[in-house]
Amino acid sequence: MKIIEAIEKCKDDGTFPFFSIEFFPPKTEEALFNLQQRIERMSQNLGPLFIDLTWGAGGSTFKESLELSSWIEQYSGCEVMMHLTLTNISLDVIDQALNKAKEAGICNILALRGDPPRGQERWTHSVENFQYARDLVRYIREKHGNYFGICVAGYPEGHTECSDIDADISHLKSKVDAGADFVITQLFYDVDVFLKFVNKCRESGINCPILPGIMPIQSYQGFHRMVSMCKVSVPQYILDKLEEIKSDDDQVKAFGVEVAVQMCKKLLANGIQGLHFYTLNLERSVTKIIQELKVVKLGREAPWLRPANRHQEWVRPINWSKRPKSYIERTTNWDDYPNGRWSDSRSPAYGFSFSGTNVNYTNKQKEALRAIWGNPLTIKDISTVFLNFLNGQISRLPWFEEQGLQTETLMIKDFLINLNQYGLFTINSQPKVNCASASDVKVGWGPRNGRKGGYVYQREYIEFFCPRDSLNVIKEILDNYPTISYIAVNILGEEISNITEGDVIAMTWGIFPNREVLQPTILDPYIFKTWWKDEAFGVWANEWGEVYARDSESFALLQNIRNNYYLVNVLENDFVEGNLEKVFTEALGSLTKL
Amino acid sequence: MKIIEAIEKCKDDGTFPFFSIEFFPPKTEEALFNLQQRIERMSQNLGPLFIDLTWGAGGSTFKESLELSSWIEQYSGCEVMMHLTLTNISLDVIDQALNKAKEAGICNILALRGDPPRGQERWTHSVENFQYARDLVRYIREKHGNYFGICVAGYPEGHTECSDIDADISHLKSKVDAGADFVITQLFYDVDVFLKFVNKCRESGINCPILPGIMPIQSYQGFHRMVSMCKVSVPQYILDKLEEIKSDDDQVKAFGVEVAVQMCKKLLANGIQGLHFYTLNLERSVTKIIQELKVVKLGREAPWLRPANRHQEWVRPINWSKRPKSYIERTTNWDDYPNGRWSDSRSPAYGFSFSGTNVNYTNKQKEALRAIWGNPLTIKDISTVFLNFLNGQISRLPWFEEQGLQTETLMIKDFLINLNQYGLFTINSQPKVNCASASDVKVGWGPRNGRKGGYVYQREYIEFFCPRDSLNVIKEILDNYPTISYIAVNILGEEISNITEGDVIAMTWGIFPNREVLQPTILDPYIFKTWWKDEAFGVWANEWGEVYARDSESFALLQNIRNNYYLVNVLENDFVEGNLEKVFTEALGSLTKL
Repeated sequence: MKIIEAIEKCKDDGTFPFFSIEFFPPKTEEALFNLQQRIERMSQNLGPLFIDLTWGAGGSTFKESLELSSWIEQYSGCEVMMHLTLTNISLDVIDQALNKAKEAGICNILALRGDPPRGQERWTHSVENFQYARDLVRYIREKHGNYFGICVAGYPEGHTECSDIDADISHLKSKVDAGADFVITQLFYDVDVFLKFVNKCRESGINCPILPGIMPIQSYQGFHRMVSMCKVSVPQYILDKLEEIKSDDDQVKAFGVEVAVQMCKKLLANGIQGLHFYTLNLERSVTKIIQELKVVKLGREAPWLRPANRHQEWVRPINWSKRPKSYIERTTNWDDYPNGRWSDSRSPAYGFSFSGTNVNYTNKQKEALRAIWGNPLTIKDISTVFLNFLNGQISRLPWFEEQGLQTETLMIKDFLINLNQYGLFTINSQPKVNCASASDVKVGWGPRNGRKGGYVYQREYIEFFCPRDSLNVIKEILDNYPTISYIAVNILGEEISNITEGDVIAMTWGIFPNREVLQPTILDPYIFKTWWKDEAFGVWANEWGEVYARDSESFALLQNIRNNYYLVNVLENDFVEGNLEKVFTEALGSLTKL
Repeated sequence: MKIIEAIEKCKDDGTFPFFSIEFFPPKTEEALFNLQQRIERMSQNLGPLFIDLTWGAGGSTFKESLELSSWIEQYSGCEVMMHLTLTNISLDVIDQALNKAKEAGICNILALRGDPPRGQERWTHSVENFQYARDLVRYIREKHGNYFGICVAGYPEGHTECSDIDADISHLKSKVDAGADFVITQLFYDVDVFLKFVNKCRESGINCPILPGIMPIQSYQGFHRMVSMCKVSVPQYILDKLEEIKSDDDQVKAFGVEVAVQMCKKLLANGIQGLHFYTLNLERSVTKIIQELKVVKLGREAPWLRPANRHQEWVRPINWSKRPKSYIERTTNWDDYPNGRWSDSRSPAYGFSFSGTNVNYTNKQKEALRAIWGNPLTIKDISTVFLNFLNGQISRLPWFEEQGLQTETLMIKDFLINLNQYGLFTINSQPKVNCASASDVKVGWGPRNGRKGGYVYQREYIEFFCPRDSLNVIKEILDNYPTISYIAVNILGEEISNITEGDVIAMTWGIFPNREVLQPTILDPYIFKTWWKDEAFGVWANEWGEVYARDSESFALLQNIRNNYYLVNVLENDFVEGNLEKVFTEALGSLTKL
């Protein structure tokens, strides 16, 4: 969705104010991995309207910016805007960037002239009439019509190269006239300067949204460097206070948060409805500011990761709940969600393709993973790995995309530990939820504009691998409980189940004011027994086994489990009275602890 | 659905045993009206698999049988089977009957040879090779292929005209071979005779279901007349007991129930899975038997009347909940329910036609209705009519198709009385339900094969007419409660509402084992403001006003209300904590009691 449309939707839904956050592409693989986790966290926990990603001078981060933007668009659950500059970049490269952005589903561009690359004093461009950001805006509109949402930069204190604020505003107007949808400003620390700037913009006929750019002070040195580079004026009390505390980094950061909160409050009080934060790829300050402002759109829209381009999607199988990216990847070609869900999964048009789990660990990664998973030789060794993950001693397990345990899993940690001690290796679960508030921090979810007053529900669910003889024991107990349903299947597709073919079962649902019932998670036995079975069994060999030599005992052990174990799911239909833990305690009594 | 398919579905769903009930078309209009109410009640309360309707000898009830069958198919919520005979009927008439049945959506026929019309000793037919029921079966199959489900009659003690039971079974076999799907037997009182008959049938290769026909003893005279006519043997203990109690009708009836229950229990114990009851158009005995057998499929499948031919339908607007037949009539041409509901109601294909309320009272009916509704001259008179209806002093009110109040309405009767005393004329309502058992006798509902262990919910809802100044007072109070939604609209479509255009709101939903969430009742503001508004306002003039002379004061009063009042609906989104009664008590404090 174009950001200008998202802003208008905010207005219609009454979910003002909103905010956005800006990052830059990091330089190393590891930094990238950490930033992705950070973006995901901030996106899910804070609910920004969009995420902004910069573009290195002269196109120096072409590949990184495109790839990360594309990742954000697809996986963060948040709309992305990618910067694009024209300085020292050939038209070919700009065309490439725009085309690739389009292919990746990115539809928002911040069009900038750009700084000259390091070492060059001034910008140049070989093509005539292609010197200013407005030329880039015009070019994008000419080439791509209304496909892209376009943002441009505003300079509340005038551009560093332009001493005349009126001339600067007329430049801004020409950018908007060329087709830009809205404006984000350069950082500033004097709110009055920004408000005056907005007034002048309005007077000159710039009527689109103007988002103030807020950069929290993170360090004494960094702040002064930035201030002098951008030539922004700073109120004297800030300078004084910083001098006083400059030797204490923590105090400087805390003061930075305080200053930003005060600025934002003043902006909001003056009718500004959107705030843009320069994070410098840091998490804590901006998170604190947003939380203190109480503009946080806390909590999940759905109980699963909801990519920005999938606002129509409302139903998913429960099995992928710990592997949402795998699910998104599998269904990446879907662009239609009749009634919020896929069409009939038995239809050949279903297109739920399985490309196979395709991890490609480097040797270094393999070594690192062996360090945390060990070289298992027995089933007890396997159990230890699962237990270490549940106990927080290791942060990764191959069935879980996220590092560490989700809050929801933590709620039934002891139960899961118990199961794994008896050789039932749990890879998915959710606790029972009966009429919790949709705003509940652990299990709440719901539409951002209508979560208040909603109630959410979940059926208790566990999914685990176990050998056939354990399954027999468990089945005998489960069959005494008429409200419990289960399906067990091995790699060959041999099935033991008490579910009628064709049943599809609601696993998570919510009731919200002025809405129909939402039912975002279901169990579809057919999907479980086909695509999910293959993926879940595949992980033993392809994702875990992959870190060991093919002729190692550990690989053979994992392969053996894959070939002989059953994948079992168990759900308690009775979300009011049911208690799977109690039932399983009974079953474990007849099994042997490893 | 063909009955044989319904039987197979029962088997698959594990909802054996089932039963069916038989009626005959009554002779007077009034008796017909009463029988319809009875059929509806028995259909909804007991859950028969199908209803069987007879056909007079020689086609003497052609019109009545067809019309009532068609009514049962459309409105009772139950599949119908219509008898058809060939004796003394021309092929033309048979063709007509089959074609008309098809047009009316009837797809089950009980093919009989038929008795000779009264006064004639034996049957005749002019067409060659068209003398036996098997010829009629063959004819239906030839003419209509597999469209109709066909049942034939079996005679456990041999046909009255055939002394040889083996010959009789070979006749039955020829009927089945000609294309019949299943068999219903003549009445009997000796279960062993029936079981022996079934065995012989199986031996001779008749493999389809054979339903025993049970006729409870209703009176001493009637029983003996029937027994001698059908030549059935009666165990001596029955005859003895009847002699003993023959002067006490109530005792005879009670004994009849006892005998039938014992017979049915023995049949069920011997593996018979379907029972057919001859009701003689009486309600009490068969109801008692079915209840004592505990084979009752008690309760509603959906919270609204679910016609037999609409198994696909799962969502309806709440507004018609007291006028389900009007709703069915409006939507009679729908034959597709994508995802259980109509398609987009804003689409021109929606086809939610409004033919106008078209009651055509006879003068006698008008007089009767004036007797219960009076000749209202003031708003207080109107209020009195509504109050009389709520208090059970009168049984009809024009917005309610059913006579008297539904259980659900009774639950909030005092609240509704209070509203009507203040001139808020209530025409629709439902109480709040939070997590009641789906088997609850007052508010429960759910799929017959999966109601057990289910939970149902409702949002509290009231709908009423009131003048504009009352609305203003109410609105002011309601606006203090963020979880309450309301829409008020007058005949001109002028609207006062706090609901966003496009919201569709779940009003009733249920969570059942191994199912997705079901959501059978919704409020669609668009439908409310268009079709329902017209129907509800129309009733003032067309259904109530219709009973008065056009130039009467009463007609003018009703017309005046129609033209000036608002139709208001109010719903409490919070089905857990909300309480509309409390909120309205506050509002009524500022209104004047009539």
